[in-house]
Amino acid sequence: MRTRAAVAMAAGQPLAVMEVNLDGPKHGEVLVEIKATGLCHTDEFTRSGADPEGAFPAILGHEGAGVVVEVGPGVTSLAPGDHVIPLYTPECRECDYCLNPKTNLCQKIRSTQGAGVMPDGTSRFSMLDGTPILHYMGCSTFANHTVLPEIALAKVRKDAPFDKICYIGCGVTTGIGAVINTAKVEIGSRAIVFGLGGIGLNVIQGLRLAGADQIVGVDLNPGKVDMATHFGMTDYVNPKDVSGDMVAHLVELTGGGADYTFDATGNVDVMRTALEAAHKGWGESIIIGVAPAGAEISTRPFQLVTGRSWRGTAFGGASGRTDVPKIVDWYMQGKIEIDPMITHKLSLDEINHGFDLMHQGKSIRAVVEF
Amino acid sequence: MRTRAAVAMAAGQPLAVMEVNLDGPKHGEVLVEIKATGLCHTDEFTRSGADPEGAFPAILGHEGAGVVVEVGPGVTSLAPGDHVIPLYTPECRECDYCLNPKTNLCQKIRSTQGAGVMPDGTSRFSMLDGTPILHYMGCSTFANHTVLPEIALAKVRKDAPFDKICYIGCGVTTGIGAVINTAKVEIGSRAIVFGLGGIGLNVIQGLRLAGADQIVGVDLNPGKVDMATHFGMTDYVNPKDVSGDMVAHLVELTGGGADYTFDATGNVDVMRTALEAAHKGWGESIIIGVAPAGAEISTRPFQLVTGRSWRGTAFGGASGRTDVPKIVDWYMQGKIEIDPMITHKLSLDEINHGFDLMHQGKSIRAVVEF
Ligand SMILES: [Zn+2]
Ligand SMILES: [Zn+2]
Ligand SMILES: [Zn+2]
Ligand SMILES: [Zn+2]
Repeated sequence: MRTRAAVAMAAGQPLAVMEVNLDGPKHGEVLVEIKATGLCHTDEFTRSGADPEGAFPAILGHEGAGVVVEVGPGVTSLAPGDHVIPLYTPECRECDYCLNPKTNLCQKIRSTQGAGVMPDGTSRFSMLDGTPILHYMGCSTFANHTVLPEIALAKVRKDAPFDKICYIGCGVTTGIGAVINTAKVEIGSRAIVFGLGGIGLNVIQGLRLAGADQIVGVDLNPGKVDMATHFGMTDYVNPKDVSGDMVAHLVELTGGGADYTFDATGNVDVMRTALEAAHKGWGESIIIGVAPAGAEISTRPFQLVTGRSWRGTAFGGASGRTDVPKIVDWYMQGKIEIDPMITHKLSLDEINHGFDLMHQGKSIRAVVEF
Repeated sequence: MRTRAAVAMAAGQPLAVMEVNLDGPKHGEVLVEIKATGLCHTDEFTRSGADPEGAFPAILGHEGAGVVVEVGPGVTSLAPGDHVIPLYTPECRECDYCLNPKTNLCQKIRSTQGAGVMPDGTSRFSMLDGTPILHYMGCSTFANHTVLPEIALAKVRKDAPFDKICYIGCGVTTGIGAVINTAKVEIGSRAIVFGLGGIGLNVIQGLRLAGADQIVGVDLNPGKVDMATHFGMTDYVNPKDVSGDMVAHLVELTGGGADYTFDATGNVDVMRTALEAAHKGWGESIIIGVAPAGAEISTRPFQLVTGRSWRGTAFGGASGRTDVPKIVDWYMQGKIEIDPMITHKLSLDEINHGFDLMHQGKSIRAVVEF
């Protein structure tokens, strides 16, 4: 079949919206009509050429929601008409990682996914001249139709709006999951969130959901205070306003250091501050942000010997097929909010404008609706 | 009263064995006759002048065992004749740290202990000319008699030999506790221990006690293999024999990385190797060794984002008054071994020879008996 997609032809180029060929689902695969997709910094990381592993041409996008159109042979858990959210972290429920409750990093299709192809080693997308186009993060949601492995699709309720729940495919789950699955924050905890972008806001609402007593937000841009406060931030710190040592300021503000700190900036210096602002004896610092290639974190080992833990999270520690439908339920029940974070709606033809909005800091999330 | 002690008069000097004055126990304090004390690298760190916080003159030593001689006013949990092990990490059971099950770092007397004095701000030790002598780590076990706060003494069974259980006051508990209290290693785990000195051996026997399936030891000195094997090491790696990448070698050897890795070297480069040799998704790396002043650990944040945790431990995460008596029981029951690690017995007059043995790598533990 043919479908419309925004294709990343080469590093640093705007996406090119065009008709492409899409082969039907093979064994264990599912054809999905994408109804909405968010634009994430990770897409831009690859589009811009900053991603050292970026390969082209490719159809980017990994934060979508849609409807199953057709299932390939062997697919048992999904049927046409099912509503689904694509998962860049799949859940096969049979690999060593899926069977270990300590991790969500299913490795079943990792190598082919990293290579931009389906598990059989080939791509379903091609140019009209036959040139293959790579998949991206196993999702390629910047296409009106895409093919994914069954294990990379979370089945969700049908009454949830696509243009909101697509964000659960990445940012919402990453932020809330970092709190709930990775840190396992307890009621009454004190926390610090570094970076008040989309991930940071979702960490904040995750902390509110977990019953945190103090939720400190740190960001250089005071324009982000209103939204962060709306989502549950209790204290705001602008590093520009702190004259002395930032760690000492945060330790003072949190009565000895935070029980949990979260880096949602990707800046390795901020990651160090986040670790050192965690409470002696039991503070945990969770890295969410993606650092530039080659950047390294550092600290004195004394920080760890005196009881701080340094950890990280990917996709919020969520096992997608199990956890994503629950997060959709939480949204529908009003336990979490998404609507105020979807700041812009675009058509596929306007997708490059979405990246402009991202760079200008004007959007929390721009969503393309098909 | 007067007692005999080995006094560190100045940084870098041999200890001077002499008669000193010892005031009796004040409120909440206990006079203890030390029967045996181990010589630990931490004592040497301070004696040598490498410790930036070292202060002199002081009576070093923190790994002892003895008998209560007299209790001060207000002491309720100990009486003359009780056998005790001094605790450089006390357990007051009422500070925020003692009441938090995530940490053992009781802060009740931290500031005075760090300053080399008793909780009232004064020292009990003095030269015969009246010059005050500082306490050390709240213990000062290089004296035939010493005074400690009640909260810094673990009461232990009377049939346990002082010349063995003194080692539980530091090295044994640090190594075994890192496994049991900090890492909480599960049966069937795979682990790597970096450094096969006294701490490393105790980590190894802790791993055996915890039911680990694979216990890899890493050390540049093959002379340590026999003892490590005796304590439970299943695989030995000499970095000199590994031609390629050390992390890749260890990941291969452990079938994808170790569930738990322990640094008992204090070398920050080794700490990095230990982290990166931990299993993707769930591996935890525990820092036990004390690094040189100013040294820093580094890694790419990707190591944490893909599921490794970087942690540390002090005194094996043990709450001393609660846990140390249990470890003494384990020794008496034969669950753990100490005897082969006590390689040298000395008199107090020979104490400087004990540091020579340490430097020559000839001792695992030299113990001074009074
Ligand atoms: Zn994303
Ligand atoms: Zn799996
Ligand atoms: Zn010690
Ligand atoms: Zn305490």
